[in-house]
Amino acid sequence: MLKRKRIEKVIENMVRCGLSQIIVSDPVALRYLLGQDIEPMERCAALVIRDSGAIDAYMNKLFCFEPTEGVALHEYGDGEDVYRMIAEGLHPGRVGFDKEWPTRHTLGVLSKRPDLIPVLGSEPVDTARMYKDGAEAELLRAAGAVNDRAVAHGIANIRPDRSEAELAKLIDDFFLNNSGRQVGQYQIACYGANAAQPHHVPDGTKVRPGDAVLLDLFYPINGYWCDMTRTVFYKNVSDHHRSVYEIVREAQQTGIDFVKPGIRMCDIDRAVRGVIEKAGYGDAFITRTGHGLGMMVHEPPDVSAACTAEARPGMVFSIEPGIYLPGDVGVRIEDLVLVTEIGCEVLTHYPKELLTVD
Amino acid sequence: MLKRKRIEKVIENMVRCGLSQIIVSDPVALRYLLGQDIEPMERCAALVIRDSGAIDAYMNKLFCFEPTEGVALHEYGDGEDVYRMIAEGLHPGRVGFDKEWPTRHTLGVLSKRPDLIPVLGSEPVDTARMYKDGAEAELLRAAGAVNDRAVAHGIANIRPDRSEAELAKLIDDFFLNNSGRQVGQYQIACYGANAAQPHHVPDGTKVRPGDAVLLDLFYPINGYWCDMTRTVFYKNVSDHHRSVYEIVREAQQTGIDFVKPGIRMCDIDRAVRGVIEKAGYGDAFITRTGHGLGMMVHEPPDVSAACTAEARPGMVFSIEPGIYLPGDVGVRIEDLVLVTEIGCEVLTHYPKELLTVD
Repeated sequence: MLKRKRIEKVIENMVRCGLSQIIVSDPVALRYLLGQDIEPMERCAALVIRDSGAIDAYMNKLFCFEPTEGVALHEYGDGEDVYRMIAEGLHPGRVGFDKEWPTRHTLGVLSKRPDLIPVLGSEPVDTARMYKDGAEAELLRAAGAVNDRAVAHGIANIRPDRSEAELAKLIDDFFLNNSGRQVGQYQIACYGANAAQPHHVPDGTKVRPGDAVLLDLFYPINGYWCDMTRTVFYKNVSDHHRSVYEIVREAQQTGIDFVKPGIRMCDIDRAVRGVIEKAGYGDAFITRTGHGLGMMVHEPPDVSAACTAEARPGMVFSIEPGIYLPGDVGVRIEDLVLVTEIGCEVLTHYPKELLTVD
Repeated sequence: MLKRKRIEKVIENMVRCGLSQIIVSDPVALRYLLGQDIEPMERCAALVIRDSGAIDAYMNKLFCFEPTEGVALHEYGDGEDVYRMIAEGLHPGRVGFDKEWPTRHTLGVLSKRPDLIPVLGSEPVDTARMYKDGAEAELLRAAGAVNDRAVAHGIANIRPDRSEAELAKLIDDFFLNNSGRQVGQYQIACYGANAAQPHHVPDGTKVRPGDAVLLDLFYPINGYWCDMTRTVFYKNVSDHHRSVYEIVREAQQTGIDFVKPGIRMCDIDRAVRGVIEKAGYGDAFITRTGHGLGMMVHEPPDVSAACTAEARPGMVFSIEPGIYLPGDVGVRIEDLVLVTEIGCEVLTHYPKELLTVD
């Protein structure tokens, strides 16, 4: 079923961007607007949206596209020239193309119509997607609740004879069993100094007493991602590591407390970074503070020094500062927040008090 | 290390296609030419190849690109204008763009250089990749050997209380354990009438006596895919199903025996289809006969009525006829063949005599 309110937002954004016609082809964007899963593989699936409100869908017969009120469906078979069909429906002049569309499709359309001026056309949909509606907020809350259980499951399964890769696989199976969907990725589980690499790939390393255990877990649940990081310690924790942990925890809480409508992303990053810099670890916080998330694990907004966008109700992003000390330890704590009218709602709830596990 | 013989083939193909400069960006194509894994995610990674033999690589510093003799490396950081760097290095006129490149990169380059004429530029690399060299043939043989064991493992684990999805997962774990790489896909395991859908997604169905069990297993092993289908029967097999099985088996063997240099893909398809048509099941063979395979599970050539390409030594493709009878049964048998100077070598070896399992 066509998501009419989302389409309205997209058209508002098109007008703001000066785009009178856009082509939407990213399967995630199609699902967002149509509520249908279309997996075109190497074939062409496209929605043409006009500022007049007219919507045309160009779909291969194999996609089993469900007819949708408000959408003019143009079905094609293998061997038919879908690019000509799309091209013939476009007005002369500027056309916004989907930033994700493989170039063969874009050039296929352009080759039929030398009078078209191609420009990037994803912003109207991307901006709409940045503001989650009530149904999306519910899905993200539910995904966060699964993540809470996945973190608990991971922490409960730390064993001296279990490698990072084995723990990561065990957590991945938990997500699979709680989502019914297999995703081609590894969960991040790191022990000791490996945690000092923010994107360490789990390997055969075994945990040793005194190690930090960093779990950065993310998975799509019913089409919406969760993402949470917790760092615990195995058997015992040194005073030095405890102090690093408490600095990260304070920085992360500072970030969460700082979020409210009107605050710029770069200012959230500054507030979080300030805590870590003041403690003398500024050089060891080598990543941005966070990233937006929704139907993709990384989406706008970018919570970094480079982003001047303001927090607005409906935005969802992570707050995930870290201190990374090569050869020694890495600590990261990450939660997701949903911006509300007066502040933010935290979507992930596993406790953050320093924990040592046996 | 630069794969010089592959680059030479690509340049020969560029000359044949009338392309003096191409941009290669597909990570699989980059691995093929450079022997390096580059995962650009949303960033830009590009190799510009000229018919003069000059090669320029445009890589983000985060990719940790390994300097390579014969390749001029242009590193950029986030915030630097890589599209301008690429655009400035291109000659005026026609540029072949990678068919897989997300449109944002193609438009990024074009926006800097209105004098460029964009055309599709993947054929030189795709055609080179269609002819496997000795090292690739070895990798495909090794992948086929893993597939033989995976099929045996799947067949040995058919149980009355094990659903299609559970059997598929068990086989997927086998591949994971034998490749070290997790891939976001399901293996195909179907029982009974579900096998009549060529792309059935394994579900909660349990096997019953007399059911066909169709296993279509595919996985990348060290970067090269295997792909094999076997159909067996659980407990017993009806005379009707036995006869369907033997027709498919004969058609498949006919296809294998037919492959040699100079034979066109459409003629292979015709030979295979002829056997099934003669037996009266022409309408039930609803797919093409096969597909090329290598670093991707689907590659050129297309073994179908629509493809007039001739078999040449080094090509690898599947021969996978089937008879699909809705509500009743599906039988498919699939092997991979490597075209040799005098015929073909079969890369997958699990026996094809009709098998009933208990």
